[in-house]
Amino acid sequence: MTDAETKDGVIRVTVWNENIHESNGDELVNRLYPDGIHGAIADGLRSLLGDKITVRVALLQEPENGLPQEVVDSTDVLLWWGHIGHDQVADDVVDRVHSAVHAGMGILVLHSGHFSKIFKRLMGTTCSLKWRNDGERELVWTISPKHPIADGVPSPIVIPEQEMYGEFFDIPVPEESIFLSTFAGGEVFRSGVTYTRGRGKVFYFSPGDQEFPVYHHPDIRRVLANAVRWAAPIGPRLELTADRHELGWFEA
Amino acid sequence: MTDAETKDGVIRVTVWNENIHESNGDELVNRLYPDGIHGAIADGLRSLLGDKITVRVALLQEPENGLPQEVVDSTDVLLWWGHIGHDQVADDVVDRVHSAVHAGMGILVLHSGHFSKIFKRLMGTTCSLKWRNDGERELVWTISPKHPIADGVPSPIVIPEQEMYGEFFDIPVPEESIFLSTFAGGEVFRSGVTYTRGRGKVFYFSPGDQEFPVYHHPDIRRVLANAVRWAAPIGPRLELTADRHELGWFEA
Amino acid sequence: MTDAETKDGVIRVTVWNENIHESNGDELVNRLYPDGIHGAIADGLRSLLGDKITVRVALLQEPENGLPQEVVDSTDVLLWWGHIGHDQVADDVVDRVHSAVHAGMGILVLHSGHFSKIFKRLMGTTCSLKWRNDGERELVWTISPKHPIADGVPSPIVIPEQEMYGEFFDIPVPEESIFLSTFAGGEVFRSGVTYTRGRGKVFYFSPGDQEFPVYHHPDIRRVLANAVRWAAPIGPRLELTADRHELGWFEA
Amino acid sequence: MTDAETKDGVIRVTVWNENIHESNGDELVNRLYPDGIHGAIADGLRSLLGDKITVRVALLQEPENGLPQEVVDSTDVLLWWGHIGHDQVADDVVDRVHSAVHAGMGILVLHSGHFSKIFKRLMGTTCSLKWRNDGERELVWTISPKHPIADGVPSPIVIPEQEMYGEFFDIPVPEESIFLSTFAGGEVFRSGVTYTRGRGKVFYFSPGDQEFPVYHHPDIRRVLANAVRWAAPIGPRLELTADRHELGWFEA
Repeated sequence: MTDAETKDGVIRVTVWNENIHESNGDELVNRLYPDGIHGAIADGLRSLLGDKITVRVALLQEPENGLPQEVVDSTDVLLWWGHIGHDQVADDVVDRVHSAVHAGMGILVLHSGHFSKIFKRLMGTTCSLKWRNDGERELVWTISPKHPIADGVPSPIVIPEQEMYGEFFDIPVPEESIFLSTFAGGEVFRSGVTYTRGRGKVFYFSPGDQEFPVYHHPDIRRVLANAVRWAAPIGPRLELTADRHELGWFEA
Repeated sequence: MTDAETKDGVIRVTVWNENIHESNGDELVNRLYPDGIHGAIADGLRSLLGDKITVRVALLQEPENGLPQEVVDSTDVLLWWGHIGHDQVADDVVDRVHSAVHAGMGILVLHSGHFSKIFKRLMGTTCSLKWRNDGERELVWTISPKHPIADGVPSPIVIPEQEMYGEFFDIPVPEESIFLSTFAGGEVFRSGVTYTRGRGKVFYFSPGDQEFPVYHHPDIRRVLANAVRWAAPIGPRLELTADRHELGWFEA
Repeated sequence: MTDAETKDGVIRVTVWNENIHESNGDELVNRLYPDGIHGAIADGLRSLLGDKITVRVALLQEPENGLPQEVVDSTDVLLWWGHIGHDQVADDVVDRVHSAVHAGMGILVLHSGHFSKIFKRLMGTTCSLKWRNDGERELVWTISPKHPIADGVPSPIVIPEQEMYGEFFDIPVPEESIFLSTFAGGEVFRSGVTYTRGRGKVFYFSPGDQEFPVYHHPDIRRVLANAVRWAAPIGPRLELTADRHELGWFEA
Repeated sequence: MTDAETKDGVIRVTVWNENIHESNGDELVNRLYPDGIHGAIADGLRSLLGDKITVRVALLQEPENGLPQEVVDSTDVLLWWGHIGHDQVADDVVDRVHSAVHAGMGILVLHSGHFSKIFKRLMGTTCSLKWRNDGERELVWTISPKHPIADGVPSPIVIPEQEMYGEFFDIPVPEESIFLSTFAGGEVFRSGVTYTRGRGKVFYFSPGDQEFPVYHHPDIRRVLANAVRWAAPIGPRLELTADRHELGWFEA
């Protein structure tokens, strides 16, 4: 079936990870994330959302990069974590995910996913930014306190050590700007922003790196859980096409 | 040279046209546009902007689809008209134009250009819409009266006969919505909208069809002339890349 | 108590009406709305939202214009219908409602309420528009199909007879534009728009007039019911003040 | 005359200052701003814009708070600096300025002017914020590099000592967010934002305090000069009223 659940039902979540640092035996990453970054993210969602969701994991190394048509068709919200393997994702997989977002699937793009094929295609920009990896303190401030993604989240979230991502971040003007981050070095970053693409909702959230235990942070987990609920589609998935419109059918 | 002129200088305009209806000997199109759609657009710009601009024409049938690197490098604002030949534009030409917009080139996408490769790539959506070609009256209303693109433009512009383009138009939420059109059949369309992509400005404007003399309409010419001035880059073209940011250089 | 219910609880709705046409014995209005415009609106909400809400009515003619502090304090979402009695609303009542919106109360401003004191104060603009009351067909088109306020609403909604409200509508650029209306005369209007003011959500919706049975229209009722759920506050009401921020409390 | 000059002509600027710190003999302020804060601002504009503008000063202590009808009528762009005297501005003066903005006058609200009557009225929110005056380093980052207000401005602007203004800043979602500031204490602030109100443009810019020489800073002067040009009205001032719209006048 291709119909997504409505938001009153159970949300079917798929956590995608390129899983390269993990499978390459990176000691630091394996210590921080013994079940993989995907495992930590999935665990956080399960613990906060319980039976409101079902969670699957999909990995780059699997057939069709873990995202065959039937997986995409049965995913309400997809989380995307990638870093050094963006080019290894097949173009037709990106096409498939792109079309699913247009038709209503929600997507959460995380951290270094800003340079993934799917995010650049959704944004239409270079998605470049400034960065520096010196393990600095990041503060994540809420500037849209009524937004459901910020519900129950302190302002600021304090992340003791993080990679710095800074402006200018080359993204389209966000529809909603929910979080702004500052770093010990003085930089600023639009760290939590939303878009609509077709019938699908998009949330980009920058905190989260393979070298820091960010996905175990309770406030970060709260943001991701909130975002899954926010991004869940309303109504069935619908393909958008150019249609001839007949005159007169809207007469009373 | 790759530097674009600043807006205080002369704006270098390139009008691109797929030029298929014209070169196929379509009688109606040739009667309405004896110098091609590109000729009518270029003529309107020259008559309104005079020596504030230089205008070139570029056509699909030319080498590299009329847009070799040196043409793109020396274009401040590109106008794009395409309809039935979108697929004939080479992907590397689209890449080149896309990168130029990111670096600061302005682009005006016209009418059926909503389905061009470059527009879909800039938007990240399907860009689909409803349509009906029954030669209906279109009214173009201004909803952002202070915007420079609306300067000197009556509200509504009255176009006696036009193809209908209707909502839902699958575009990202515009940064600025300047014009809304209604049609005799009752439909509505976001007919003049702006975006920023990187350092480049994007304006989509729907009025204009090969079967109606829309590009000879004085108010439509005014909109295009205003939009050329609005989209002209500020400052030199700049490639956006991910840079490492050094600590401390912003000390006072 | 001043805490608003969260959206997981029962939403406490107050429908405010100036109730002048009704109490002046306007025959047409009394025939269309035998229980008052407020009665029709309240009835629609009750029939669609059932025990998800409680509904009260408040009228201009009551003490403190029906909105003493305790009523405002115990209202999660306020609906506002006014037309010829805007000036009769006491300024301190407007202050009270304004502060409640800042602190998190949702507000739905309906039709001729565009000229109410509270709406002008929330917007900061003149809120003027074009109008004509010739009982024309209005079509309400959805341009944000994923928005919860548009859930289950056909596009277009067909209203056989309505007062025309047309652009230029002098409002701030909306945060979200959900509905656009066209009229038989060719005009266009931004008929469903949202804003945030402080922690409160604001929805303006233009369809609805005392001389037409618009509030009995099932699609209009659906929009209002959706909007009540959308505007319900998240978390307790919170007064916003300028605070001194202490250094260092965000250390990890 | 009430017509504002067009932006092709000379821009008539009025710098308004409450002038209380200065006239109270505050030693620090008088040392930093021997000609008043208004004097420093006016001087910066004159030195950068030369004969493109004329500059007048208006002070709270003058008749009608320095803003009689004829001054407002002949002002294209008004700059507003206030701090401890907001309540001393007469309500009818605020009404006059408010109406002028609706009709097309530009306004630049500076620093502590966030709590002025005119700004709160334009915004419709409390305009509250977090603050701390410890003379911290402020960095002002550009997030809209193509915006004319950011033209020629380094990112970041480095202000060695400033009062901290921090989020949550209770303003409506900006139309354009141009600058974000960070402070040595880790806070973030939307420090340069734009709005449209009616036909008038509004720019709020937070850097600038009576206890620091911010208005002598060359980059801050550049921002203000750019903003004056950006806010200058296009076309004559126009009162916005609700008009009956006649059928059929838009026939071709």
